[in-house]
Amino acid sequence: MTDPSPFRFEVRSEDGAARTGVFSTPHGPVETPAFMPVGTLGAVKTLSPAEVREVGASMVLANTYHLYLRPGSDVVADLGGLHRFMRWDGPILTDSGGYQVFSLAAINEVRDDGVLFQSHLDGSRHLFTPEKVMDIQHALGADVLMAFDECPPGGSSIEAVRVANERTLRWLERCRIRFEALVAEGSGALQTLFPVLQGNVYGDLRSDHLRAVLALGDWQGYGIGGLSVGEPKEAMWATLEAMHPQLPAHRPRYLMGVGYPDDLLEAIERGCDLFDCVAPTRNARHGTAWISTEGQVNLKSARFRIDSRPLDADCDAYCCREFDRAYLRHLTVSGEAFAHRLLSIHNLRFLIRLAETARQKIQEGDFSTWKASWLERYRAAAG
Amino acid sequence: MTDPSPFRFEVRSEDGAARTGVFSTPHGPVETPAFMPVGTLGAVKTLSPAEVREVGASMVLANTYHLYLRPGSDVVADLGGLHRFMRWDGPILTDSGGYQVFSLAAINEVRDDGVLFQSHLDGSRHLFTPEKVMDIQHALGADVLMAFDECPPGGSSIEAVRVANERTLRWLERCRIRFEALVAEGSGALQTLFPVLQGNVYGDLRSDHLRAVLALGDWQGYGIGGLSVGEPKEAMWATLEAMHPQLPAHRPRYLMGVGYPDDLLEAIERGCDLFDCVAPTRNARHGTAWISTEGQVNLKSARFRIDSRPLDADCDAYCCREFDRAYLRHLTVSGEAFAHRLLSIHNLRFLIRLAETARQKIQEGDFSTWKASWLERYRAAAG
Repeated sequence: MTDPSPFRFEVRSEDGAARTGVFSTPHGPVETPAFMPVGTLGAVKTLSPAEVREVGASMVLANTYHLYLRPGSDVVADLGGLHRFMRWDGPILTDSGGYQVFSLAAINEVRDDGVLFQSHLDGSRHLFTPEKVMDIQHALGADVLMAFDECPPGGSSIEAVRVANERTLRWLERCRIRFEALVAEGSGALQTLFPVLQGNVYGDLRSDHLRAVLALGDWQGYGIGGLSVGEPKEAMWATLEAMHPQLPAHRPRYLMGVGYPDDLLEAIERGCDLFDCVAPTRNARHGTAWISTEGQVNLKSARFRIDSRPLDADCDAYCCREFDRAYLRHLTVSGEAFAHRLLSIHNLRFLIRLAETARQKIQEGDFSTWKASWLERYRAAAG
Repeated sequence: MTDPSPFRFEVRSEDGAARTGVFSTPHGPVETPAFMPVGTLGAVKTLSPAEVREVGASMVLANTYHLYLRPGSDVVADLGGLHRFMRWDGPILTDSGGYQVFSLAAINEVRDDGVLFQSHLDGSRHLFTPEKVMDIQHALGADVLMAFDECPPGGSSIEAVRVANERTLRWLERCRIRFEALVAEGSGALQTLFPVLQGNVYGDLRSDHLRAVLALGDWQGYGIGGLSVGEPKEAMWATLEAMHPQLPAHRPRYLMGVGYPDDLLEAIERGCDLFDCVAPTRNARHGTAWISTEGQVNLKSARFRIDSRPLDADCDAYCCREFDRAYLRHLTVSGEAFAHRLLSIHNLRFLIRLAETARQKIQEGDFSTWKASWLERYRAAAG
């Protein structure tokens, strides 16, 4: 059977639950496992599109909530859509805005029809409904849209998670109806909608929710939400292990908001394919970098004062090819934006290269051994 | 006669007082008139060395005061000198630190042996003497060193300027002695020392000071200080006109701290060859850009909200080739560092291209006509 969708996912190799694949989109393929840099406001902070490409990114994430408030999704649409606006010709995924509404907005009232919130910028009042969130993401023109969901924080009671799951499911159905109507209009870009799987770390709720989401359609991919929100790490891994056999094997799984290097490897081992996290660029702003032989370091440390070595001798990023630690320390201590840029380049390259190596090791059937030794070295160095 | 110095200045063409030339340095030639980007802390803010090269810069300026305080000139020397530290293989000029000591430092006591000041960073106490300032710049390893001077603000009394001139002259002699001793040691980079000509807008003081400086040696170039420090523009131009015939024709003249586009052209017309100013990068940080057909604009203006045109259609910079005004406005309003970077690229390219065009017009003997029409258009637009 031919698939009329421009979105396809092909699993290329498997090693335990870990797998490599290619997620095809209208803006090109994404080799998985893949880490997606976050371009919150339509730019990966401090970086040019060419630099984002050079660190090896294929797909980037942008934030619906932020772009809706500023410059406005209508403005982005008027200017030809988000790809054109930010001059990124690769695939883009936009989140639903749900996470930001619940975490950033000043006041919010969660109603059955949606969420009423006040902008963190100017206090203006807005209502996000499933339909509205679809309209915004449709206007932005990303390749992958995320369904509007409610994500209770880690540590929420089972009853609170059950209520949120039910709401998320009703919203998903409304998202799908609106998304299909927008697709039927045929006016926009070729897009696909991913549901967000919720349920926190409650196994039964996860299973029930997943079953209900699968009953709503054969989605091109699945967002795994409600993890990395404050729960213990072991509970996150156990949840992923329980979800693995229940998820369709032939669709990509996007573990939202992960992660740090060690978490990335743990999640890849448990069958996740796509990842995003602000850590590489946010840490860079604070002078923090990852080094495979040293763990996470802060460049402000006095020990880098006259250190003429590259930041990470194993790294092929511009930052590490060209500059030394003493210079990076100096710029970091001085608050120079060029340091933020150089460390962002390194941190992004570090995670993306980690995913590249993971792909290679999965293909070679050697993932678990490599992962164990990589983590041992990384964690021992981190002390 | 052969000149043993690796520094040479060759005037290539003249058009009135304006001239083109080539200033040769151990790190390559500088075609003049030339605008030098300011890399205060060893980086032109937000930009990579490759980007500084791409906007057409040949020589950059770095700040002695800032680098002395952080990371320390000893650290820079240990790491192989400033060229290596900041990965800039073109010529570098370091200022004397005098301007920063007088304008930034918390407390300062001007004594005959030097200036006692407190760091603006941590309040620590330091003494800059002419000898100390030579030692620092020698350690940094720039191509061109500037003599330690006292620069009274615009509006200073003739008596205050006379006293400062006398001190600057005594300091110059001490700078020369120390510089020659450092050169005789033969341990450092090939460097040359420029005196700073002072005298504010007092013609007689200017003439006396210049004569005394010339009596001290045949310098490879001359810094023109004490202008663009708050005096009326007309007084600055009159001062440059009076100095022109008194300055050695075969040496480059560096007008310190200038400038804005219109000031650059006025000064070129009056025989100046080298320029520096933080305006291109500082204005960029505030969202301000120069456009030849529109004057100085601020990207935060609502009129750019859905403006899909390039920032400056005449500009060949990356910023203007790739992005549109609405995107630049969005990033500027949002405080995204990528906007600072893109506008810095444009503003620097704008000034450097202006100097390039000036060179071409001088060679064609058409400078004054072109300058008049350029300024008319620029100023009319700025309205």
